[in-house]
Amino acid sequence: MRYAYPPYNRAASSAGVTKRSASANTLFIGGIMAIKFYYLSGSPFGWKVWLALERKRIDYEMVLLSADGGDLKQPGFLAINPRGKVPAISDDGYNLYESSAICEYLDERYADSGAGLWPGNLCDRATGRRMESEVGAYIYPPLRRLVEELLFRREGIPDEAAISSAREALASELNLFAQAAVGDFLLGHEPSLADFALYPMTALLDRLDLRHPQRAFSGLMPEPLKSWSGRVEALSYFQKTVPPHWRAG
Amino acid sequence: MRYAYPPYNRAASSAGVTKRSASANTLFIGGIMAIKFYYLSGSPFGWKVWLALERKRIDYEMVLLSADGGDLKQPGFLAINPRGKVPAISDDGYNLYESSAICEYLDERYADSGAGLWPGNLCDRATGRRMESEVGAYIYPPLRRLVEELLFRREGIPDEAAISSAREALASELNLFAQAAVGDFLLGHEPSLADFALYPMTALLDRLDLRHPQRAFSGLMPEPLKSWSGRVEALSYFQKTVPPHWRAG
Repeated sequence: MRYAYPPYNRAASSAGVTKRSASANTLFIGGIMAIKFYYLSGSPFGWKVWLALERKRIDYEMVLLSADGGDLKQPGFLAINPRGKVPAISDDGYNLYESSAICEYLDERYADSGAGLWPGNLCDRATGRRMESEVGAYIYPPLRRLVEELLFRREGIPDEAAISSAREALASELNLFAQAAVGDFLLGHEPSLADFALYPMTALLDRLDLRHPQRAFSGLMPEPLKSWSGRVEALSYFQKTVPPHWRAG
Repeated sequence: MRYAYPPYNRAASSAGVTKRSASANTLFIGGIMAIKFYYLSGSPFGWKVWLALERKRIDYEMVLLSADGGDLKQPGFLAINPRGKVPAISDDGYNLYESSAICEYLDERYADSGAGLWPGNLCDRATGRRMESEVGAYIYPPLRRLVEELLFRREGIPDEAAISSAREALASELNLFAQAAVGDFLLGHEPSLADFALYPMTALLDRLDLRHPQRAFSGLMPEPLKSWSGRVEALSYFQKTVPPHWRAG
């Protein structure tokens, strides 16, 4: 399997994989291999898992895959996720994919490490899981449509009706999130998986604006979510999770 | 809010709601009101929650809503779920929607009631959550497309290219599930939320065949999933969860 290297640590990597660790630079702790975290730069679901790994201060080795390089369809990776999608993890021989399942697993398996991904209160936790589902079911589909039309399209012209309908859906959905947020973060004082699920999606709006400033998608963010974004970006571990190819410019 | 009554217990209901209980016919237990379970006949995500309520032997009052009657858009229901979708629950004043969040909540809140929704083993539980996500992300979208084209379409002719592409996607996805199943149920000896998520989707294939027998969608089920279906249908509480309007014929 080939790996792409993010520009910011290409020099540091010599083994063909990108090694990252939240609390140490070692890959082996007490004989246990660090979790392998399979990631594709820019994947919003991958970013959610990355933020979760950091919040929980879990030792991991990030394996940065290249879609253009065909890594996702290599037999080695298909053995981990038969759909050839990121995020995925391998933990001491156990392979898992689907970001929500991965994060719940990490929270249970490493219950004593770092900070929890959900609030202690039962109803807050349920509301958080609701929000995480909502991001996947209602925010991601219209956003993906925008990305397909405006960032990934290789031929033809953008479907303006689809863009307009996606914009409308996103505006309405983001307003629901703004109304549902109850504190500095979506569920209160502390960040949770609900924030980690939503933030990477909203960051894609800025990314769309970079390429299409006249469309001003970031204007879809309601005021309360704009300040919420700033608080997510101020988390101590946030900067290192910015998609490598976004850093490159 | 208006409610539709399923034919099989119309006579039993006099308060304008359909009352069902897994272990008793009372709505009040020790002064605590039973959970209200908002449901729409035929909703696959609603069916998942219904099976979960039954497996956990939780007392609930089922509120059967009518989409045609406009129940989903009534202010009373929008106050529970602003998107006007089922399933949703109200538990002692706490409102929750999104089936996955509801089921996790029920499993935690009623940990001592009935049987658990997930296996005790950490990795099995994670694999189950992965499967539950996969149903929503990969089985539901093509199935919804088939239902829209072949059951809900009110004008025009079915889009055969879309039907063909949905059929192909479902065949491939159902094969992944057949390969991933490890026992009588998806995760082993006991049914879990993974089964409750998948089963209602596959049941829609039979429903499609009722209207369009020549299309033979149930033929998409791989052999191992056909016998698995039979085991889900043999669960003691299965029959009472069959969508009311399917019973009516």
